[in-house]
Amino acid sequence: MASNSAARTPQLRKDSVTKRWVIFSPARAKRPSDFKSKSPINPNSDQQQQCPFCIGHEHECAPEIFRIPPDNPDWTIRVIQNLYPALSRDMDVVSAQDPLHQNSDSGPGRVVISGFGFHDVVIETPVHSVQLSDLSARQIGEILVAYTTRIRQLMIHDVIRYVQVFKNHGASAGASMSHSHSQLMALPIVPTAVAARLDSMKEYFDQTGNCSVCEFKSSKDLLVDVSAHFVSIVPFAATFPFEIWVIPLDHSPHFHELDADKAVDLGGLLKLMLRKMSLQLNNPPFNFMVQTSPLRDGASQLSHSHWFLQIVPQLGVAAGFEIGTGCYINPVFPEDAAKVLREVKVSPSV
Amino acid sequence: MASNSAARTPQLRKDSVTKRWVIFSPARAKRPSDFKSKSPINPNSDQQQQCPFCIGHEHECAPEIFRIPPDNPDWTIRVIQNLYPALSRDMDVVSAQDPLHQNSDSGPGRVVISGFGFHDVVIETPVHSVQLSDLSARQIGEILVAYTTRIRQLMIHDVIRYVQVFKNHGASAGASMSHSHSQLMALPIVPTAVAARLDSMKEYFDQTGNCSVCEFKSSKDLLVDVSAHFVSIVPFAATFPFEIWVIPLDHSPHFHELDADKAVDLGGLLKLMLRKMSLQLNNPPFNFMVQTSPLRDGASQLSHSHWFLQIVPQLGVAAGFEIGTGCYINPVFPEDAAKVLREVKVSPSV
Repeated sequence: MASNSAARTPQLRKDSVTKRWVIFSPARAKRPSDFKSKSPINPNSDQQQQCPFCIGHEHECAPEIFRIPPDNPDWTIRVIQNLYPALSRDMDVVSAQDPLHQNSDSGPGRVVISGFGFHDVVIETPVHSVQLSDLSARQIGEILVAYTTRIRQLMIHDVIRYVQVFKNHGASAGASMSHSHSQLMALPIVPTAVAARLDSMKEYFDQTGNCSVCEFKSSKDLLVDVSAHFVSIVPFAATFPFEIWVIPLDHSPHFHELDADKAVDLGGLLKLMLRKMSLQLNNPPFNFMVQTSPLRDGASQLSHSHWFLQIVPQLGVAAGFEIGTGCYINPVFPEDAAKVLREVKVSPSV
Repeated sequence: MASNSAARTPQLRKDSVTKRWVIFSPARAKRPSDFKSKSPINPNSDQQQQCPFCIGHEHECAPEIFRIPPDNPDWTIRVIQNLYPALSRDMDVVSAQDPLHQNSDSGPGRVVISGFGFHDVVIETPVHSVQLSDLSARQIGEILVAYTTRIRQLMIHDVIRYVQVFKNHGASAGASMSHSHSQLMALPIVPTAVAARLDSMKEYFDQTGNCSVCEFKSSKDLLVDVSAHFVSIVPFAATFPFEIWVIPLDHSPHFHELDADKAVDLGGLLKLMLRKMSLQLNNPPFNFMVQTSPLRDGASQLSHSHWFLQIVPQLGVAAGFEIGTGCYINPVFPEDAAKVLREVKVSPSV
């Protein structure tokens, strides 16, 4: 009965990390094990010859920031500028004015700052047909280390307050290029949802003395898998069906302090989650996001903060209700999703 | 030059109503006037014979709540229960426990309430091929009045705190039925985004003595159109390209206090906005949402609150960056979108 959500009545749950309400509505759903993507990604359907992210096409890309290994034509990872950046890295262009100057001259209630920032792309493999989950734990670990290296470079700019690392996989998850890649956006603000998450975690910490992310480490019913340094869970009030959080076991506010050994361990668990999601949900488009803390906040501000990696398979659309309320309707109870994902059998890996 | 966004540099703007940051990034965009939907809705492609929302198929629907005119087989509007409700209207099923009892027994940080609520459908026309924008101002006004009638019915339930009225038009905007309809969801909570909007408007009011929605009424550069009792604008920090807000000229917190005369006036302006959007953007899927105030808040709590109708054409996807940060990237500056929409020529209407 516990895993038969059809027997359940709807619930509203409030996430203790994001403070968002989510409606769990099993009456609308198939059985949790029957969820499949309706727009799966077929990696063989795209035999693009002219992809600028492929090895040998480096000259078609925006400028490179660094590659791994350095100065090697046989690179495995390249970090480059986004050819269509959402923010401008050209301080001269954006700021006759101070980029942090809030300009309210143009009318009442009008708060504007210049769009200074960085928008980079991490090409995860030189080979067009290779997906992130095809790589080894060690190779994925190197990509994670490339993220942290780039974040530490970006920190020298005092104006940059937050770096969002994210991956869009599949066109309907927002990827404009099919060659496996991820992105970093370095922002001159702390984004709305990040500020709300930190406020919510602080409130929880002040009330209970505990970290709301650490609390998940002991949630047996929400557990998916565990590695030496990380645990993967479905959060108690997951916004999206089969959403997964990968949480460091050590309480730690900043993703960019990840060391190389832990990065390989995280690479292994991330690979396992992506393979399980692909097998169980029919190779769905997905996003992942590193949920970390503002760059310049000190230890005293961050005792309540704990970074994690959020993985979201794309199985539905945000429509009028979600846009209007900020509440999502999730047809799969998190403990059911966790059980399904826990039990997926993955064949021995590369 | 003012309307040539290619000459502009990126900006971040903070919405004074929602307090959300939005990135305006013209470098990624075509000219504002070149925006078109890639998945337009062709109303003639769907000649469904077996639609339960069509007149004569009433027995295939979930129970009716009321129809207009009452007791008339030749109805023009029907308000019915949703066959797949996200919340349960059955108080017996959901609450052995008090539906507002927050149950934290199941673990630390776990906040749960029963999913009591109402999820209704408004069938806007008896005819399958008729779209909302095909109806007259008077007919659309009657639909708006049907929303307010239903909200006042739902208010008798003390547990209901907020009613979200919304419309999903087109499959990629979340509509599972192509027959023109909208929905009401009556919730036992004040949703996260609504609470944040009200907090933000209160903060603005406390700082300036003004209503942040009223401020838009004098924004000539953001103006689209005006009627006797309403104004339509593109908000200064619009989350989505070509997002439109229709705002009552009278400062008024609650949509459900709309009277029949003003409803017809609003119906006319809503029709004009939908026709302009359809002509300019190639008949895009869209959502609209009534942004109102919690039902039971009194005048003293609501001096800073002002309801409006938000219209969002669907021209892009929310991807990893948006999920991670809650910030959206909008490629069209609001004053450019307003100018384009202001200048759309609409032929004389039915």
